[in-house]
Amino acid sequence: MVAPETTFAFLYDELEARDAAGFVHVGGRFDDTLRYLTRFSGSDDRYAFVFVGGDAILCAPDGFERQARREFTGDYVYTPEDLRADTPGGRAVEVLAAYDADGTVLVPQDVPHDAAVRLERAGFEVASTDAVARERVVKDPEEIEALRKAQAAATAGMRRAETVLAAADADGADDALQYEGERLTTTHLRREVDAAVVREGALPGENTVVAAGGACTDRHFRGDVPVRPGETVVVALAPRGPHGYHGALTRTFVVDSDGGWERRAFLAVESAQQVGLDELAGGADASLVHEETAAEIGAYGFPAGYGDTGFTHGAGYGVGVSRRESPDLRDDTRLEPGTVLAIEPGVYDPSEGGVRLGDLVVVTDDGFEFLGEYPRSFTPRA
Amino acid sequence: MVAPETTFAFLYDELEARDAAGFVHVGGRFDDTLRYLTRFSGSDDRYAFVFVGGDAILCAPDGFERQARREFTGDYVYTPEDLRADTPGGRAVEVLAAYDADGTVLVPQDVPHDAAVRLERAGFEVASTDAVARERVVKDPEEIEALRKAQAAATAGMRRAETVLAAADADGADDALQYEGERLTTTHLRREVDAAVVREGALPGENTVVAAGGACTDRHFRGDVPVRPGETVVVALAPRGPHGYHGALTRTFVVDSDGGWERRAFLAVESAQQVGLDELAGGADASLVHEETAAEIGAYGFPAGYGDTGFTHGAGYGVGVSRRESPDLRDDTRLEPGTVLAIEPGVYDPSEGGVRLGDLVVVTDDGFEFLGEYPRSFTPRA
Repeated sequence: MVAPETTFAFLYDELEARDAAGFVHVGGRFDDTLRYLTRFSGSDDRYAFVFVGGDAILCAPDGFERQARREFTGDYVYTPEDLRADTPGGRAVEVLAAYDADGTVLVPQDVPHDAAVRLERAGFEVASTDAVARERVVKDPEEIEALRKAQAAATAGMRRAETVLAAADADGADDALQYEGERLTTTHLRREVDAAVVREGALPGENTVVAAGGACTDRHFRGDVPVRPGETVVVALAPRGPHGYHGALTRTFVVDSDGGWERRAFLAVESAQQVGLDELAGGADASLVHEETAAEIGAYGFPAGYGDTGFTHGAGYGVGVSRRESPDLRDDTRLEPGTVLAIEPGVYDPSEGGVRLGDLVVVTDDGFEFLGEYPRSFTPRA
Repeated sequence: MVAPETTFAFLYDELEARDAAGFVHVGGRFDDTLRYLTRFSGSDDRYAFVFVGGDAILCAPDGFERQARREFTGDYVYTPEDLRADTPGGRAVEVLAAYDADGTVLVPQDVPHDAAVRLERAGFEVASTDAVARERVVKDPEEIEALRKAQAAATAGMRRAETVLAAADADGADDALQYEGERLTTTHLRREVDAAVVREGALPGENTVVAAGGACTDRHFRGDVPVRPGETVVVALAPRGPHGYHGALTRTFVVDSDGGWERRAFLAVESAQQVGLDELAGGADASLVHEETAAEIGAYGFPAGYGDTGFTHGAGYGVGVSRRESPDLRDDTRLEPGTVLAIEPGVYDPSEGGVRLGDLVVVTDDGFEFLGEYPRSFTPRA
């Protein structure tokens, strides 16, 4: 695959529009803004990115010079030996000075305070910009390809979950399902899923959710409870794949269901997801996607509120270098073609369980396209 | 295992010493300072921690209220419904106001700038503190137990790497090793290792290094090159385990070595690691551990400089909620009992390869203790 490469025209335009001399950000390897700007997978130590005079510059951290040169898609990598300052903020100031920059420097609002203070003490006026977050919304073909690969890993993980659940035995002495002679718990199942994700070259970043029964009400459940027949099992995957891009795939299964709440909830969520998908297109109103999804869930008799019961969250959100990024489908915004979204409605009831279905799609001019497909089956299939 | 729990006496003392009214930090789930303070595994959305009036308060992000209540080991969880502000910085201000706090508020130096600005606009004087980083150096028994578990996962990953290398066939048609009928590459081996780590319940956080030959010179190599007989293979693991604590295990293997550089380098590094370990004890001078390690490598005829060749990095560093934290063994500081360190010397030569050996230990009153043991074998053993 061709590596995604950030083009900095948007930043050049933002500096022009704001009459600013440069842009600076500082962070470590978990700062997604920096990952997007640099394509450098980073170090735990913080480092600086500077855009000034039309040049994109990475001030690489100590010990990561080779990796920075290999990965950075901007113009110049400065190593600690190239600069006198010993903090990332100080290095950014030094680079700006080398370009004779003065006046305003733009930063993301969450730039570390010490870096902002250093810029101010060097005489710059610091102002925040959300230009990077806006630029990240629409994905180019290389980014879409990276997202597809991450989603392929999510799909492999889901396949493993469904295979284990289909093979699990509901007739053990225990009330939990038995798998390969052992009691099946959410931790056991999550490890099976995560191992399958890793084998596909992606990483489950402490956010694989495997929940069963009442625990499904907690959308971010990471605890250990038995997986029982007749109860909902929510499996939600958001692995980080090539170049830091994420997948997003959620399914809900029930082993040996006797119908009832979980069957009705599944039909409601399946139908609501379809309604949401049908609303997608370039120019579509994001919040309408959410509202139509909520209305469909309501039509099945489930409340669409924001408490503990019913459809308690948004219909979807942007996915990219961040697991969750702009736009949120509850936002008052128009969808642009190339926006990648997780469409992910759910219904919950603390006394029954939870059902959620989620898929990764890219918005096109007149609809959407799945970035990977996985069947929706209430009963797990081998 | 018993979950680690942060006690806030150190923060209370710091506020007293600095005549400050409170402490605030803001960040997302990859902010290790917040992870330590809250034990909350967090959301991608940012959230605030406030210590004021002797109370430790987590302002939980939207949708994570249950998880926050389950995990937070401080006093109170405030949900978005409990507060009027809609940013984490604004919520921190609101909590401080509820305690009638005024004057100075302490923050870590990398608190997000927007949060610091919000505190300043609310009339507080913002001053930075490194009290949390200092407190994190010495681990309590629950933290040691979490580190042991993470190291057990690293050990399982290394066992897998060594097993694959021992079973690989050097007599294929290709010049690369063959494993199960396929050409063995660093990516292939890394996936095998990562899957084994995940099965032990830890997560390889995009930092498992598998390098071969000249690529070993890049200590953070994540690329794909063939694994060839006679070349060094560096496998470095730092998985994130229970409660966010990390392991640290590095080994170097050579399949079908003909002796020469790699054999000499292995003996030098093995001996240097032992010298470094022998220096460890409560009250020992950290930089002396590094210097003695470097001297031993020098005695084997390898340069101990900071270029591309020889012993190009420090002898070790602290490990905890961060993969790498205080102290660095090049620092001018005394080691305290309970400090957990990776002791990890290495020798590199761009034209030959690299050898690095690393283990996780805890400093005791009169020496050290391994947090997991793994043999050091030059030739991989099945």
